[in-house]
Amino acid sequence: MKCVSCKEEYTSEDAGTCRDCYDEAGETEEELKREIDDLKAKLNFLTTTTSSSSYSTASSPWLCFSDVVLVASTYEDASTPIPAHRAVLASRSPVFKAMLENDMEESLSRTIKIIDVSYDALRAFICYLYTAEACLDEPMACDLLVLADKYQVKHLKTYCEKFLITKLNWENALLNYAFAHQHNAKSLLDASLVVIMENMDKLNKREEYKQLVDKDPQVVVEIYEAYVSKQANTAALKDSPNL
Amino acid sequence: MKCVSCKEEYTSEDAGTCRDCYDEAGETEEELKREIDDLKAKLNFLTTTTSSSSYSTASSPWLCFSDVVLVASTYEDASTPIPAHRAVLASRSPVFKAMLENDMEESLSRTIKIIDVSYDALRAFICYLYTAEACLDEPMACDLLVLADKYQVKHLKTYCEKFLITKLNWENALLNYAFAHQHNAKSLLDASLVVIMENMDKLNKREEYKQLVDKDPQVVVEIYEAYVSKQANTAALKDSPNL
Repeated sequence: MKCVSCKEEYTSEDAGTCRDCYDEAGETEEELKREIDDLKAKLNFLTTTTSSSSYSTASSPWLCFSDVVLVASTYEDASTPIPAHRAVLASRSPVFKAMLENDMEESLSRTIKIIDVSYDALRAFICYLYTAEACLDEPMACDLLVLADKYQVKHLKTYCEKFLITKLNWENALLNYAFAHQHNAKSLLDASLVVIMENMDKLNKREEYKQLVDKDPQVVVEIYEAYVSKQANTAALKDSPNL
Repeated sequence: MKCVSCKEEYTSEDAGTCRDCYDEAGETEEELKREIDDLKAKLNFLTTTTSSSSYSTASSPWLCFSDVVLVASTYEDASTPIPAHRAVLASRSPVFKAMLENDMEESLSRTIKIIDVSYDALRAFICYLYTAEACLDEPMACDLLVLADKYQVKHLKTYCEKFLITKLNWENALLNYAFAHQHNAKSLLDASLVVIMENMDKLNKREEYKQLVDKDPQVVVEIYEAYVSKQANTAALKDSPNL
């Protein structure tokens, strides 16, 4: 027989679908693609502005009718204010919402100062709140995860975690584990732990390990606890009479 | 052979894919579904508010930090004002943008009066600008199409046209044709014309036809022109030596 998709000959042992099911699958795929197009058009409608520039182009902020500014500030210095809208900030982050709805300093001055963050990271953060998109590398993903955790922007936190998980390896697993621990990033924590546990024999030779033992021994203890618990589970499975 | 999808036996004549292609198609489908989930989560992030009520629940408007109101008004009466945000209106509609960015009455008073529209239709229109969703029946689709045309909200106009096209039949084709003509709805116009041209022998017996001849004969002439042009094309195709 000839496959209607790849046009190669195949024997009955390698048979896939009958023609009816093949046609049906094709229709399903078409429907899914149409749904994707519709969803993309909706997203585009909700995020594109009618002016020539938009929040996603770094140079010229769109932001007409802005009613609040955000400032990235260190103790010495403050960045260029980034204009935004209270309604958008409040609808994306419960922390901004509480801050802006009550008579807090930020609400009265219409200025939100954010400490210990770079201008670029803050700008990317605000941009994400408007567009649900960000251009990530590892440092930016870490910066945005910290902000997402602090301002409870769950969608962004998941996005950053997913990105960092794709970059996990033995070289960075311990740092990612400690980082995930600090910022309550459960998926990244679990994924880092898997990588660490595959390399337990090499663990205490790493420089970051020694630093972590000094700085945050509790976190190291949790790694060992997870390891011992996993070993116990494995042993129990082996001894189980059902296997 | 047995189909791996429906589990039915089939002969080699009815063969669809080989197993490799079947597996690949399954993976593609999974990928498309994942993409759909991602897009839906993005949309949800961009349209859901953190407060308990949202724009899509009719009773309690969310709309904190609103900086403009819209009023549905007839010559005698004005409805309850509907709060909104200038930034959202301006980013979805070039007409609102121009109105709000310049020193027009609406911009100074922060009030946009919309004539000859019901409160419900206006509310659904504003809701669409925030969520890209609307619950349509035929009268609502017509009302929203009129607003979408007036305020140049292309995404909504397409949405209403698609809905009205699914409801087209010989009973409503002529009314839809005239309506589409009046509000520059090209897809609806073309689709209505197809239905009308299938029923040309019955056309001049309809009550709406007579009314249209009185009210807007130009539109009726265009139907006849399209019909004659189609007949000429069909005849030319028949005479073509290549067929």
